[in-house]
Amino acid sequence: MTAKIIDGTAVAERMRTALAEDVERFKAQFGYAPALGAVLAGDDPASAQYVRMKRRACEKIGIESITHEMDANSTQAEVEAAVRSLNDDPRVHGILVQLPLPAQLDEEPVLALVSLDKDVDGFHPINIGKLAMKGREPTFTPATPTGCMVLLEDAGVEIAGANAVVIGRSNIVGMPVALMLTRANATVTLCHSRTRDIPAIVRQADIVIAAIGKPEYVKADWLKPGAAVIDVGTNKIDDPDTAKGYRFVGDVDFEAAKEVAGAITKVPGGVGPMTITMLLQNTVKAAWRLTAEKVV
Amino acid sequence: MTAKIIDGTAVAERMRTALAEDVERFKAQFGYAPALGAVLAGDDPASAQYVRMKRRACEKIGIESITHEMDANSTQAEVEAAVRSLNDDPRVHGILVQLPLPAQLDEEPVLALVSLDKDVDGFHPINIGKLAMKGREPTFTPATPTGCMVLLEDAGVEIAGANAVVIGRSNIVGMPVALMLTRANATVTLCHSRTRDIPAIVRQADIVIAAIGKPEYVKADWLKPGAAVIDVGTNKIDDPDTAKGYRFVGDVDFEAAKEVAGAITKVPGGVGPMTITMLLQNTVKAAWRLTAEKVV
Repeated sequence: MTAKIIDGTAVAERMRTALAEDVERFKAQFGYAPALGAVLAGDDPASAQYVRMKRRACEKIGIESITHEMDANSTQAEVEAAVRSLNDDPRVHGILVQLPLPAQLDEEPVLALVSLDKDVDGFHPINIGKLAMKGREPTFTPATPTGCMVLLEDAGVEIAGANAVVIGRSNIVGMPVALMLTRANATVTLCHSRTRDIPAIVRQADIVIAAIGKPEYVKADWLKPGAAVIDVGTNKIDDPDTAKGYRFVGDVDFEAAKEVAGAITKVPGGVGPMTITMLLQNTVKAAWRLTAEKVV
Repeated sequence: MTAKIIDGTAVAERMRTALAEDVERFKAQFGYAPALGAVLAGDDPASAQYVRMKRRACEKIGIESITHEMDANSTQAEVEAAVRSLNDDPRVHGILVQLPLPAQLDEEPVLALVSLDKDVDGFHPINIGKLAMKGREPTFTPATPTGCMVLLEDAGVEIAGANAVVIGRSNIVGMPVALMLTRANATVTLCHSRTRDIPAIVRQADIVIAAIGKPEYVKADWLKPGAAVIDVGTNKIDDPDTAKGYRFVGDVDFEAAKEVAGAITKVPGGVGPMTITMLLQNTVKAAWRLTAEKVV
């Protein structure tokens, strides 16, 4: 058996085309574009690259970007002031604070400052709290976990009643995707660095979300035949056979796993393209919400 | 093998004695008592009784109670005004809104209104969100789940690395206790009404938290020998052999389960007495926090 390959690039492309049309409607109605404000503090090359990618993705579908590029030595007060100015700027509909912040800064108060109406990253504790609670609706949900859920649904994976295993309990992927799967009526087991026997737990899973950041960590013989596997990892490994001398692999041993799984994402081309797409979707949603409020 | 019986009444008693001493210290220092404000809307007898029990427990250790008893026909605005007045009252350190509210009222905005500094029930979405997030500390954690954790620790149960199964995903017990167990490095599986095979999942658990509200639902032969079992249920069942014609049982078939488990709580006398104790503890903590802020 060879798994169905879940093509994140194709799903993301389809969604971005629809979003571009939605942005056109927005512009036609209001005469200006939805806008995403970003705070980028410091000179971490990966962060800078990530912000550039987001900006390009915004431009492509007609969303404006306003980036506060800040010095690596920025103070807490300066970064908080940047967030406040984006909160107060009526042209800005969504705000993203690129993490990690430089070491001297405290991330928690910066993120807590982001206006709930503009929290397109979905990381405000109120949004995470509502995600955990029955009968509550977060205004925005975090991009990567939402992307995982969209890919599962798009692939026709039955979530309600399924046994789902999430490997990794990070604030940005593992924990929120576990909460989202529980909301969707899966029975979720959340594994992490202190879990005793991850392979034994994965073997019982109908759905596996690998978000632990270890190259090709999940092996084919851990998988229940037919399981749906979403690989969130993007790990750079040396590979002298490539022109660049390296390549990216996921947290799952893809080549072997695809012979056991029922459906599986590739790396790259799986969750990656979905993350930015969900951020774009949240930004367009924020623009409609904020503008509708103004009109009323 | 007969399980160690985890005696919630004894643990609660010990904690309340220590809390009474803490309240004495507080009074000696500031000349007034910590105070818990409660909003009780409607005439649900169970809610009224629960508020009375809380008030008596407060009195016993020297905490003052201020209860807003409100009509079953109270409007949203009236109940919200009651919460606001408790927020603004400097004599009040903790606020509890007795749930469920009458059907015409929307619980979410009422709970969201409770000042974070007085959220001794720990149900504000910010506190739940922080409970879910690594590197965040909720100001207060909900009473019943905290009581479960204290009982496990008191019984010497190793939580880190253990496989824990939580049955029931309610906002007040199941979900927050799952988050607390994950924070304590257990590997948590959260089961609920849509879970396919609860017995098979429970069989793998070193720690079982039963919070599903079904009398004697968890059977002895579901348990891994030696497992620690915390029974959160309190279910009233008919029993013609008792003077009252009924008695209370938990969510676990205690008599049979105690022959398999390593440690187990009784009902009554397990989690029940801990719930109010943790509310008292949160109230005393709130009083110190708010007063220290005033002094500084």
